[in-house]
Amino acid sequence: MSRDQRHALDTMVRKAPQPSGPVPVERMREGFAAFMAAFPPPDGVRRTPAELAGRPALLVEPEGEARPGTILYFHGGSFSLGSPETAMVLTANLVRRTRVRAISLDYRLAPEHPFPAAIEDCVAAFRGLLERGIDPASIVFAGDSAGGGLTVTTCLAARDAGLPMPAAIAAFSPGLDHTRSGATMTTKEGIDPFFTRQGLGRTGEMYLAGQDPDQPLLAPAVHADLTGFPPILLQAGTNELLLDDSVRLAERAREADVDVILDITAGVPHVFQAFAGTLDEAGQALDRAALFLTQHLDAH
Amino acid sequence: MSRDQRHALDTMVRKAPQPSGPVPVERMREGFAAFMAAFPPPDGVRRTPAELAGRPALLVEPEGEARPGTILYFHGGSFSLGSPETAMVLTANLVRRTRVRAISLDYRLAPEHPFPAAIEDCVAAFRGLLERGIDPASIVFAGDSAGGGLTVTTCLAARDAGLPMPAAIAAFSPGLDHTRSGATMTTKEGIDPFFTRQGLGRTGEMYLAGQDPDQPLLAPAVHADLTGFPPILLQAGTNELLLDDSVRLAERAREADVDVILDITAGVPHVFQAFAGTLDEAGQALDRAALFLTQHLDAH
Repeated sequence: MSRDQRHALDTMVRKAPQPSGPVPVERMREGFAAFMAAFPPPDGVRRTPAELAGRPALLVEPEGEARPGTILYFHGGSFSLGSPETAMVLTANLVRRTRVRAISLDYRLAPEHPFPAAIEDCVAAFRGLLERGIDPASIVFAGDSAGGGLTVTTCLAARDAGLPMPAAIAAFSPGLDHTRSGATMTTKEGIDPFFTRQGLGRTGEMYLAGQDPDQPLLAPAVHADLTGFPPILLQAGTNELLLDDSVRLAERAREADVDVILDITAGVPHVFQAFAGTLDEAGQALDRAALFLTQHLDAH
Repeated sequence: MSRDQRHALDTMVRKAPQPSGPVPVERMREGFAAFMAAFPPPDGVRRTPAELAGRPALLVEPEGEARPGTILYFHGGSFSLGSPETAMVLTANLVRRTRVRAISLDYRLAPEHPFPAAIEDCVAAFRGLLERGIDPASIVFAGDSAGGGLTVTTCLAARDAGLPMPAAIAAFSPGLDHTRSGATMTTKEGIDPFFTRQGLGRTGEMYLAGQDPDQPLLAPAVHADLTGFPPILLQAGTNELLLDDSVRLAERAREADVDVILDITAGVPHVFQAFAGTLDEAGQALDRAALFLTQHLDAH
């Protein structure tokens, strides 16, 4: 049953039209927004425009009684595309399952704002929550793809700035290595229905803007010391060029004596959780993420 | 709070009296049974002696309405110690959390019955359930330590015998490598409060009885091809010589395109789930295991 769902999903994703040459970033943004608009967020959440540390944001709240806590959500889009709207299917599914409110941040994008602008905005947003008097033990970070990477690099930068850690971080198919040195960058070529090495190279260059990727904030899966990190949940699919980003970050976490769950689903693509409703594994993965986040929110 | 619990647990475990020389296996069995008797199973389960494929077993059922399904449980004890009674804290906690009945098998032990006697008994038990007309998609395997290893090797042997696969397997601190070649066999020496390389060598020799450990059923973390396996959950602590058994089995699973969750808790020892009630992480890990098992039981 679900094997059939995984196969249908893979076929569907591969049928998506692929651009034949370089596309301006504005058109890439429109295309990504249109693609993600096809993933409807679940009922049972309320969205309100907000602002956090000088950046636009979306407050996403459960209808009915909320559980205490705040999910600070970072959307995906290779650091150059996307917005809180494009990740709403993921944010809203987490809110509905945890009954915890989320604030999804509209951080600055490359190429207009390359590394480390996005990280600076995410750290500022976290600091903004703390300055409102919110207990860091009641905050968790979550994100997908580039935003999954930001859950980790924001913790690194926050720690180095002397800020406290959030209660936990959950990352869906995080991008954690701009050196692109994971073995799956090669072994999953042609298997990954979304990404090619070339495509990742293009958006990667926008974010790097000539900076050296061999540093912890650009390749945490390779270079980061995660000492002092909160519990980490990493979810990814085996049909991903970026699979080894999660695999190696889990190694870094174990080395640093940090709780870490490496939760791998076979035969599914990048950020498969967006297919909640049509793919059983997507809803199940979100249920596991919700349990993980609430375990750490409820513990404090 | 929980950091304090982890530290207190580590101190307590290290204070346990250590034998000064070789101890007869009968005395080791008595000592292990006495040690595990200090871990009270939770209320809310009913135990009934049973038999399965010619071996004694314990049927463990939830009080009140049960969820459909059967957990086939394999206890720990280095293949030479233990019984369904010694693992009851784990089995009963899974039953209480999942509301699924368990059958815990009293498989044959070394040195009286070395490899592959235990695996033969576990496969026979699984076959026995199938011959009662039970749908394999309604059966999951769970086990701890040596029994965690048996969840994997029983699947290997069942697959090779042409039997169907269960719906999922969950292993707590599984022993998956009698070659003892994991890096943590060295890096965690002195950190692991329970095991030494020498201690593992003694029970390992009883089970091996001179047989070559370099084979899939004795070192699945090194040699097994897990193609066709059901979803796997591996839970372990960072204070374990056996940590890399789980890490490497997760690699084997990803290579074979099998769903696998590698769920690592920092600063806790072998089969820390037995400390449910005194260690928050133990209860949380059992809750995650229960969600994993019921997701796969409910899916069919």
